[in-house]
Amino acid sequence: MRLLRVGAPGQESPALRDEAGRLRDLGGVVDDLDGSFLAGGGIERLAGLDVEGLPVLPEGLRVGPPLRPGKIICIGLNYRDHAAETGAPIPAEPVVFMKAPDTVVGPDDPVLVPRGSTKTDWEVELAVVIGRTARYLSSPAEALGCVAGYALSHDVSEREFQLERGGQWDKGKNCETFNPFGPWLVTADEVPDPQDLGLRLWVNGAPKQDGNTKDMVFPVAEIVHYLSQFLVLYPGDVINTGTPAGVALGQPEPKPYLRAGDVVELEIDGLGRQRQTVGQA
Amino acid sequence: MRLLRVGAPGQESPALRDEAGRLRDLGGVVDDLDGSFLAGGGIERLAGLDVEGLPVLPEGLRVGPPLRPGKIICIGLNYRDHAAETGAPIPAEPVVFMKAPDTVVGPDDPVLVPRGSTKTDWEVELAVVIGRTARYLSSPAEALGCVAGYALSHDVSEREFQLERGGQWDKGKNCETFNPFGPWLVTADEVPDPQDLGLRLWVNGAPKQDGNTKDMVFPVAEIVHYLSQFLVLYPGDVINTGTPAGVALGQPEPKPYLRAGDVVELEIDGLGRQRQTVGQA
Repeated sequence: MRLLRVGAPGQESPALRDEAGRLRDLGGVVDDLDGSFLAGGGIERLAGLDVEGLPVLPEGLRVGPPLRPGKIICIGLNYRDHAAETGAPIPAEPVVFMKAPDTVVGPDDPVLVPRGSTKTDWEVELAVVIGRTARYLSSPAEALGCVAGYALSHDVSEREFQLERGGQWDKGKNCETFNPFGPWLVTADEVPDPQDLGLRLWVNGAPKQDGNTKDMVFPVAEIVHYLSQFLVLYPGDVINTGTPAGVALGQPEPKPYLRAGDVVELEIDGLGRQRQTVGQA
Repeated sequence: MRLLRVGAPGQESPALRDEAGRLRDLGGVVDDLDGSFLAGGGIERLAGLDVEGLPVLPEGLRVGPPLRPGKIICIGLNYRDHAAETGAPIPAEPVVFMKAPDTVVGPDDPVLVPRGSTKTDWEVELAVVIGRTARYLSSPAEALGCVAGYALSHDVSEREFQLERGGQWDKGKNCETFNPFGPWLVTADEVPDPQDLGLRLWVNGAPKQDGNTKDMVFPVAEIVHYLSQFLVLYPGDVINTGTPAGVALGQPEPKPYLRAGDVVELEIDGLGRQRQTVGQA
């Protein structure tokens, strides 16, 4: 299933994209797509639904984030080519930082360059949505059973704030609008191999990133298992699993950081596409 | 006012501690103490309340966290003596990291040493609760107007996870139960000077930390102003403002990290007291 949320920011209601690409209203069936929905077996309940009986929504609705997320954990330097381009060693174990859920916007909403920023950068990422509590999992083999699904995520990053302003990356990862998310939450049954997904990003039409999740240093199952040794993952939590090479930080000077008016497009095989116009905060 | 939440974990209901120290039920007056309550002028509405007319709650109720928090931002190395004891330079600008709201527990709930941990440490901190959105504030003078109140916070930290496991402190700051919070949200009008509060912590009755918020490197108003240049602070967000000297990390070897069975007590002038028994996850 491809689940999504449509409507005005903060007032989105749940929907489903059917096989023909039409949006169907789930408002009469579920309250919202969030941790409670996932924890309560929401996906299993929807699986038995008569999709053809659901009202078809009009076209042109704004698409919001496909989930009201719990916490957002991010994995840094998780593709060898990206670690290399930033001059960082391949991490011996996952690098973990966080984004606040209030940075999440819809897949086609504007991204704002923060005031005072000259180094706003892009990062296409596979997001993992947790569906079952993961706490001290005994092996990576258990991990994928805790995954409800996958989504496209844009881990927008301000490199000066992240790297040159006094330690800890969170400072450059939590600016307003810095996590476009969606369009869809694709349930795990429709993603047979999360380690074989192409992911791509363009700025103003020019290709910038073109990677594959098979090149992750730590694959999804290892990440979920690893994180569960340090914190508890709850239904509705989201993991941004890192970005492949091709970010502005990795380019020769003058590095092509984002500016107001730029258009960023990104996609992951089977998980849909985002398009953001960059604005100025 | 001293606001709090009482009842079973996850099912707390709002209450108020009156001048005589009795707990009064606010369940009939407000839904919950959270960002919506603060954003909707909840504190101002309560200020006009006839406290004597509120039902008195029975004694012995569990006290939960006094607020359902939004995001939790933490400031690192914000006391000179603590920076010195950890061997870190005084930061030139605030060090920022994050805790997930799901780490928050009540002030007297158990704190769990994570599995595999040998370096679980304590940190008494002043927490600032945001009451009004702070976005690109033009000066620190505006900042205190965005503060709804203050609370006692315990920023429990696993030093190996934080410092020796591959970068970014968040990995050692987000373990289960790692943020005892409360007992009260004390409204800002009752804290005339947030930069003159004694804060103390004991382990098994022995004094460990004894500091004063006047020794912060970056005072509350500067922190709120500073953060508002990098991210948006919303009503219900919490800032843990750093800890003074006296943590286990700063002691000579063998450092006295927490172990199951230890009892940690902490307090801040006017903000109440916490007492946690340490358990094993």
